[in-house]
Amino acid sequence: MELTTHLMTTDPRKIPVDALKRFIQDIFAAEGMSGDHAATMADVLSWANLRGVDSHGISRIPRYVGMIDNGGMNPRPNLSVTTETSASLSIEADRAAGPVAMDWAMDKAIAKARNAGIGWAMVRQMTHSGAIGYYTLKAARADMAGLAFVSSLPNMAYPGTRAGSVGTSPIGIAVPGGDHAPLMLDMATAVVAGGRLAQARLTGETIPEGWALDADGVPTTDGARAVTSVPLGGHKGGGLSLMLECLISLMVGNPILAAELQERTPGHPIRQNGLCIAVNIAAFTDPAEFRAQVDRLVETLKSRDRAEGTEEILVPGERGDRVLEERTRSGIPVRDGIWTQLETVAARHGVAMPASTTPTR
Amino acid sequence: MELTTHLMTTDPRKIPVDALKRFIQDIFAAEGMSGDHAATMADVLSWANLRGVDSHGISRIPRYVGMIDNGGMNPRPNLSVTTETSASLSIEADRAAGPVAMDWAMDKAIAKARNAGIGWAMVRQMTHSGAIGYYTLKAARADMAGLAFVSSLPNMAYPGTRAGSVGTSPIGIAVPGGDHAPLMLDMATAVVAGGRLAQARLTGETIPEGWALDADGVPTTDGARAVTSVPLGGHKGGGLSLMLECLISLMVGNPILAAELQERTPGHPIRQNGLCIAVNIAAFTDPAEFRAQVDRLVETLKSRDRAEGTEEILVPGERGDRVLEERTRSGIPVRDGIWTQLETVAARHGVAMPASTTPTR
Repeated sequence: MELTTHLMTTDPRKIPVDALKRFIQDIFAAEGMSGDHAATMADVLSWANLRGVDSHGISRIPRYVGMIDNGGMNPRPNLSVTTETSASLSIEADRAAGPVAMDWAMDKAIAKARNAGIGWAMVRQMTHSGAIGYYTLKAARADMAGLAFVSSLPNMAYPGTRAGSVGTSPIGIAVPGGDHAPLMLDMATAVVAGGRLAQARLTGETIPEGWALDADGVPTTDGARAVTSVPLGGHKGGGLSLMLECLISLMVGNPILAAELQERTPGHPIRQNGLCIAVNIAAFTDPAEFRAQVDRLVETLKSRDRAEGTEEILVPGERGDRVLEERTRSGIPVRDGIWTQLETVAARHGVAMPASTTPTR
Repeated sequence: MELTTHLMTTDPRKIPVDALKRFIQDIFAAEGMSGDHAATMADVLSWANLRGVDSHGISRIPRYVGMIDNGGMNPRPNLSVTTETSASLSIEADRAAGPVAMDWAMDKAIAKARNAGIGWAMVRQMTHSGAIGYYTLKAARADMAGLAFVSSLPNMAYPGTRAGSVGTSPIGIAVPGGDHAPLMLDMATAVVAGGRLAQARLTGETIPEGWALDADGVPTTDGARAVTSVPLGGHKGGGLSLMLECLISLMVGNPILAAELQERTPGHPIRQNGLCIAVNIAAFTDPAEFRAQVDRLVETLKSRDRAEGTEEILVPGERGDRVLEERTRSGIPVRDGIWTQLETVAARHGVAMPASTTPTR
């Protein structure tokens, strides 16, 4: 996942986070979700916007609502545990919204880790996971390390192929800090996240070499023609993504890649499987000492000699933490195009649009 | 880890794998290791050579022996379990050779996974891990997925720094196939492995942009001046490596990076911590079906339309499998420089050099 905040020529409309959360919750409740599930959607989507990951925030609402309409997403899923050991479980997500399934899975992983040291929760058949850093931070707040992984549809060219053949499947890892905020890494296995390429297709901007292939499978720097992601480090990112499909999708008996590549149908739903892991620090070492050592590591790294042109050495999660601080204070910017789409969704259910500052123009 | 097989101008000496194994075992037994531990060293090192990963094979013997001499590596370690839950354990490796500690850890992880579904074995204070794919394949042979991770000394520039500040810490993942060989990914978090840069320093060859920094922290394409590795994908590889230090080193109470960066002393021993994970497929799904689905995925991927210039789409581990087949048949090539170093080590203990074909020149 990449930060997709961009300079805009006019100040966009800004929505206070509480108002935005209420709005998201109202929409998904109106779409048939339980109050709890709608609240989870509000938390996860608004959190992505707060951190500047706008590709995973409210801009997704129209698509999510469309998936509820076409049956791809189940607003009333029957989440059930289908396998269980002392440290692990599999969850049948019943086409739940990704945030609903992943949030539940990480809670279960944390509970398992309290006794077993490790909690390993697999999720079968959910829709788009949302920003997976959210779930890893839940573990960090419980004095655990949190890891989250997703296996997703083939939108990335495995090395040597011409078209989407593996997913841009993300990896998330968080650990608690002491005085410092938790460290949180949330990265795609692609050179750039799919959301960023989608944006380049819209704007038609020139993109760097090595980001994407065009429809013929040829590398391109023309954003408008950038249809297929390229794996981070070639065989490394491609291999990681392939192994995630094995570790997650094949482990829960719900192959995504082979099924999709063999039976590709247009307009397929967003289909994903996921994995949440919690590591109970107290099962291995003193959590207070662990947190103090995270602080020490951060301070040591940030005080290293800086390369030319580097003003500050940033640790994982730090950039997003700063955007969060700023947006918590001044509100979440929403571009006109997305605002208009949200108005359409809201009108359908008679949900009021959130209060916002008027755009200045 | 990269394949470091290279074209040589003359045919090098070749050693049959059985003779090489006996030689390695004799050397480490003479250095004081138990028969079991010496046999593990022989298996792990010869396996790396067999697969073409010569940077992690017998070329390491002189350094390992030097570490036994200077006390950095303990040939008679007291391996002990210091924490334990149903699914996890921590192992104090007592400065054991990495292969001895990691092999023991993966065995323990596999045993835990039989009951708990997951086995999570942490290793504290070992020396160089060796080629970590070896341990992940052990799990795959037990019908499990295997994962191995290492946190190592700062030889890679974290983004924005000028010198080694995080490790090139590797990630290994393997799953069993059905008719197909296990899939096995073994990758550094750097653009290229440290062993490959060491080689470039020796040869002085020109290296691609983006591989390394020179001693002043400036990007260089002069192999002779390439001293610091660069992380895969900048903040992604750098972040992964940093999180591995937290997940592994801080979790076992043996910080490597902060300790090394604050108290750097020349001639430090190679010091690492590790993590082996086994995932018992049978705890989640039918192993026969899993293996069949791995085959289906491999076949699907390999039959995709190929990019221009691609003759064959390769899956993780496949290239090394082919080298292994060839070298099992024709022997392991050993360059004169390494042969001479091994003769010195062997002479010290009166160990006979392995039988080999005479180099043709």
